[in-house]
Amino acid sequence: MSSIILRGRLLPPLPIKLHLHPSPSHSHSNLKFTSKSSPSPPTITMASIKVHGVPMSTATMRVLAALYEKELDFELIPVDMRAGAHKQEPFVSLNPFGQIPALEDGDLTLFESRAISEYIADEYSEKGEKLLCPGCKKVKALIKVWLQVEGQQFDPIASKIAFERVFKGMFGMTTDPAAVQELEGKLVKVLDIYEARLEKSEFLACDCFTLADLNHLPVIHYLMGTDSKALFESRPKVSEWVKKITARPAWAKVVDLQKQ
Amino acid sequence: MSSIILRGRLLPPLPIKLHLHPSPSHSHSNLKFTSKSSPSPPTITMASIKVHGVPMSTATMRVLAALYEKELDFELIPVDMRAGAHKQEPFVSLNPFGQIPALEDGDLTLFESRAISEYIADEYSEKGEKLLCPGCKKVKALIKVWLQVEGQQFDPIASKIAFERVFKGMFGMTTDPAAVQELEGKLVKVLDIYEARLEKSEFLACDCFTLADLNHLPVIHYLMGTDSKALFESRPKVSEWVKKITARPAWAKVVDLQKQ
Repeated sequence: MSSIILRGRLLPPLPIKLHLHPSPSHSHSNLKFTSKSSPSPPTITMASIKVHGVPMSTATMRVLAALYEKELDFELIPVDMRAGAHKQEPFVSLNPFGQIPALEDGDLTLFESRAISEYIADEYSEKGEKLLCPGCKKVKALIKVWLQVEGQQFDPIASKIAFERVFKGMFGMTTDPAAVQELEGKLVKVLDIYEARLEKSEFLACDCFTLADLNHLPVIHYLMGTDSKALFESRPKVSEWVKKITARPAWAKVVDLQKQ
Repeated sequence: MSSIILRGRLLPPLPIKLHLHPSPSHSHSNLKFTSKSSPSPPTITMASIKVHGVPMSTATMRVLAALYEKELDFELIPVDMRAGAHKQEPFVSLNPFGQIPALEDGDLTLFESRAISEYIADEYSEKGEKLLCPGCKKVKALIKVWLQVEGQQFDPIASKIAFERVFKGMFGMTTDPAAVQELEGKLVKVLDIYEARLEKSEFLACDCFTLADLNHLPVIHYLMGTDSKALFESRPKVSEWVKKITARPAWAKVVDLQKQ
């Protein structure tokens, strides 16, 4: 098994260095990442955080973004979805719903990407970027609101558009233009509300980047590679917000993982 | 406007006493609730927490359940949905998505029922029932997981069944049996996972009732009045769990509100 240790540092961000960690078997590749500064030669690290998933999956990307923002070391353990590994043991012992990602942190096993990203933000509140605002009652409450807006209002529409426009093509399926049109009609209403909100604050919950913004990144990333991009770009505040959140060094690292 | 002050106490629970609070106009009824013990004659209270919604709405019920569990005083301000009040000012200033409920707590305005119930559980952590587990890292994380399971796995299916079987009838629409059959096919898979989970712990996140259980209550309440009840009752652990969570005194108060 070969393990790749990717050493980087959030600030200054990229380029990140890639180091191979030789091990007895080369049948699978696990990716190990650490955000610690490394002036000395690379050393083998045992990450206590393990992410089971694939870098193309929006839900996995959400978790990876949180880990990079928090500058945490972790190991990415690929799940062979083409072989249906996510629907079988040992994966279903990590997540009985058979969906990626799952996270192991010591003896704790978690699933549901939004639960994981919130766990990371909360449990490692002192590390990296402050993704929650534990001291401020009002902002803390507004983060909860906009986390739910992403999960209940934005994602049910936006992820279906991403499925139609991006993932169907990957799976050899054909995009349904009528479905896209209907979904986009719903998305513009949501984006109009985002535009009004972003006229009042720089990010969704407050003037700082929070987990509520972060959770939007994976689906927005895919939509910005499609014609749906115009819906975001035609709204000045939404467009500015998309530029800011997708330009984050932590996010660049997530996108970079897809190229490996 | 007439205000009804409903005085009750969580333990011992019902019956709760109803008091009319005379005021200049009788054109609207706002319901004021307090969970404080009241040996002295009823007094007029100004609840700082205002819930804008209707007691028949599953999302409003979720918020009411949290308020009752926390033994908090609140005022329920009806929203005339038949007249489309939720899509107009002043309501859309409370929730730009035009959906009930919205909550005001002092100068804080929140929407999205799951964000509100979590805010109540978190902000009033020292009051009433402990709905979160702030001191315990593992349980705290598992609550996050099962909160997301409710929002992302259970509700998207179960609330559609409730719509087909309950709300369509209320709105003079006809239930689509094929849709129900398809949805129930999905729900049984979710309930099988719940059954396995509830073999390991008394409630979803741990051996205590938490917000993750509470958030399920409104839709389960409606489904238990339909033939879908059989899906819950045929699974021993799920059935036991449903009995326990629906028997809570705080939940009885929510259901009681629907009868007024």
